[in-house]
Amino acid sequence: MTNTSTDGLLEKYGSGFWTAEAVITAYLKRATIGHQLLNFATEFLAESAINTAKNLDRHFRETGTLIGALHGVPVSVKEHIGIGGARCNASFVSKIDNIVEEDALIVKLLKAAGAIIHVRTNQPQSIMHLDCNNNITGMTLNPLDERLSPGGSSGGEGAAIGIRCSVLGVGTDIGGSVRVPAAFCNAYGFKPTALRNPSLGLVGAMGGQEGIRGCVGPLARNLDDLITFEKVIWNQQPWETDTVLVHLPWREVEVSPSTLTVGILFDDGLVRPHPPVTRAIGKAEKKLRAAGIKAVRWEPHNHSEGWEILRQLYFADGGERVRAVINESGEPVMPLTEYALTQGSNEPLTIHQSWELNMRREKLRRAYHALMRERGVDVILCPSYAGVGAVQGTPTYWLYTAIWNALDQPAVCFPSNVVADKELDKADTAYEPRSDVDKKEWEAYDSELFHGIPVSIQLVGKHHHDEELLGAAKIIEAALLS
Amino acid sequence: MTNTSTDGLLEKYGSGFWTAEAVITAYLKRATIGHQLLNFATEFLAESAINTAKNLDRHFRETGTLIGALHGVPVSVKEHIGIGGARCNASFVSKIDNIVEEDALIVKLLKAAGAIIHVRTNQPQSIMHLDCNNNITGMTLNPLDERLSPGGSSGGEGAAIGIRCSVLGVGTDIGGSVRVPAAFCNAYGFKPTALRNPSLGLVGAMGGQEGIRGCVGPLARNLDDLITFEKVIWNQQPWETDTVLVHLPWREVEVSPSTLTVGILFDDGLVRPHPPVTRAIGKAEKKLRAAGIKAVRWEPHNHSEGWEILRQLYFADGGERVRAVINESGEPVMPLTEYALTQGSNEPLTIHQSWELNMRREKLRRAYHALMRERGVDVILCPSYAGVGAVQGTPTYWLYTAIWNALDQPAVCFPSNVVADKELDKADTAYEPRSDVDKKEWEAYDSELFHGIPVSIQLVGKHHHDEELLGAAKIIEAALLS
Repeated sequence: MTNTSTDGLLEKYGSGFWTAEAVITAYLKRATIGHQLLNFATEFLAESAINTAKNLDRHFRETGTLIGALHGVPVSVKEHIGIGGARCNASFVSKIDNIVEEDALIVKLLKAAGAIIHVRTNQPQSIMHLDCNNNITGMTLNPLDERLSPGGSSGGEGAAIGIRCSVLGVGTDIGGSVRVPAAFCNAYGFKPTALRNPSLGLVGAMGGQEGIRGCVGPLARNLDDLITFEKVIWNQQPWETDTVLVHLPWREVEVSPSTLTVGILFDDGLVRPHPPVTRAIGKAEKKLRAAGIKAVRWEPHNHSEGWEILRQLYFADGGERVRAVINESGEPVMPLTEYALTQGSNEPLTIHQSWELNMRREKLRRAYHALMRERGVDVILCPSYAGVGAVQGTPTYWLYTAIWNALDQPAVCFPSNVVADKELDKADTAYEPRSDVDKKEWEAYDSELFHGIPVSIQLVGKHHHDEELLGAAKIIEAALLS
Repeated sequence: MTNTSTDGLLEKYGSGFWTAEAVITAYLKRATIGHQLLNFATEFLAESAINTAKNLDRHFRETGTLIGALHGVPVSVKEHIGIGGARCNASFVSKIDNIVEEDALIVKLLKAAGAIIHVRTNQPQSIMHLDCNNNITGMTLNPLDERLSPGGSSGGEGAAIGIRCSVLGVGTDIGGSVRVPAAFCNAYGFKPTALRNPSLGLVGAMGGQEGIRGCVGPLARNLDDLITFEKVIWNQQPWETDTVLVHLPWREVEVSPSTLTVGILFDDGLVRPHPPVTRAIGKAEKKLRAAGIKAVRWEPHNHSEGWEILRQLYFADGGERVRAVINESGEPVMPLTEYALTQGSNEPLTIHQSWELNMRREKLRRAYHALMRERGVDVILCPSYAGVGAVQGTPTYWLYTAIWNALDQPAVCFPSNVVADKELDKADTAYEPRSDVDKKEWEAYDSELFHGIPVSIQLVGKHHHDEELLGAAKIIEAALLS
């Protein structure tokens, strides 16, 4: 089995060179081995996957056509995204026997396009860590280095895609949970604008929390597969079932290198990124200019306000819901759960307070959008995380990804084509941190540990300009690889 | 001045037959007289209106072209929609000297299309009555009968449009506040799906309340003007300024009488409409069938659940915000304000409770949408209100309009071409009401009082199918008039 994209697979299927059964069998075998190495799976769906593959192969034999844009594509799905008839515990011990009746809408839409769901993947307790450990299925490891976190909360997806046990992965993101695993595992991850991908049929503790909306997003091994995923979902009119969604099919847009303006964000003003990250951003800036793409410096606008809003709205209930689901079984509260819960006030907000925060959120979104328009910036290129990775159990600085959830701007993380290098990326001991958080993150840089780890970058689009963002990402990746 | 639509005005301007200055002067004069009769205005903008008209006339003289789709169209605006540099008190005494800095976004977009804002209009205390009375500017009267309510909360708009002191009106609707005034004043009123028209720059006490979203909506004297209004707004990309809005320009859709299916709703299962209303719905059903349009009976789905959700989410803060703004000045709480506030729990909800209600709301929306698809119903024709009107100070049954706010479905109210008739529409004293509310509303029917009052009907579309709804309304109105 070679590294294969969705397009590559479809070509092989369309020519009859491969069968879906052979491919999914190979992926199941690889996933079984990968799981033994990294503990990324919560369940294998071998029987249904092989049956689906056989049906797809029969369809192809009988009609000579593929069933859809994901015909026979192996897709892994984060555990808290419901699979009909299967257990779905969202990594809470108290929900360990929870069985959902039907597939989550996103799963139905993927299956309708021919996808084969072969493995379900791990997530952390509360699904609110940038890490991946829980009291049921334990800790997922990073395919690049077992000492490092795979990222989270879609850490099982990051590992599965990173070690090539899956072609497309389905994660969820409310603060970086698709993007950080993609970043830490040398993969591609996309968080669209909220209310485009359906969340109907997800299991969790936070239903009805609408102050900051989470969303489903894909992980993959290239940008084209992220695009294919969204075309498949958005062109099946998910809003006709999940009425909360925006009525927007995939829009064909033209993005041209000659008219694109990229804002370059080196530092969010709060936490200084590690040397390899800064080097990757700087190199990207040069590469863009060398390719004739306009790149301007982007001064961040009030990211601290974004965090003030986020930390209070995530757990506006004072964390009561999550604590209740945990306490129901008596399972221990894990340190990163405690960390997430205590970022907020740890007391429920009043309705009045939550309304005030909603207003602040909208004001910040309008201001950021207006600033991008004023400065003529189409997309912002920035770090995916303060570092190229993080030691297991330690990733706590969310804001390089989470700010875009606060702002509800689409964002995609992908490899920068730069690799951390202990010679080039020496720690700067003279740096004077701006805060305790800045200090903690700065001290987390270990040039030996991170040596050789690929550096991810993040590209951010305007609110609801998802298609323009993905088009720009293609152009920018080509410039970085040139 | 004759009864003139936007199209008619533009034709006269385009041919040079009328000047904007002459027209706005005539409308200002008429509005001054109308106001003396009905007390619908809070402020006349004569000077700025005439200056704007002169500029438009100069533009036409110099270029031979009109400035936009609303060139020289007199537009009245509900008072709590901000006008830059003007007082905006939202009918709260404590805000009596509140001056807003800039025009609300909807006003900017109307002005950009050439509209002339000539008068600002009245609304009730708290902007949460289906009536129009407050402690600053007092009670607005109904142009059809001074004993009757003009409806509310956009009652000043209903009166202004009803007595033809304005061509287009701008109201707001969170439970019927555009549609009920249109219904009571023999006008046309449209509440779009939320998050299409911008609410940026409105003054009120409920900022940040997102459980049930209010929206701006137009009132007019015909359907085409409602359509023109929305084309003007949606084609100026309001989402680029007010980022909370959905990125949907006006969609050109085809609606054909031969494929349209109309669901006919006579009774919401909770409150029986008055005899003239039932007769109008029945006549509409016959007219539709006579015109070859498919009409099927629509059984309402769980409207009581809609009210349970609405009444709690409107004032999830237990009414604290509204009471605080009222108490700041010590003005008396009016009976219909008290009524609205006490429909909820009168205690603030917890965040957890509000999240539970959000989930119930989404579940109901999905269920209703699915039902329309299953039954193959494109639009629902139903009463605009339980009666053809209501005595001043009495309209309290919101649900014929408010259910569509709970469901976030677009709805338009317009004349049914049926007039209440004391001979044809006798009170049925044998009816056994289903509840105290049903009894109260049934007993409010007075065949003498309402004799001669035109009956409004409401047409409701699917969530986000605003354009299809307005297209269907045109077809249905033509059938009713045939």
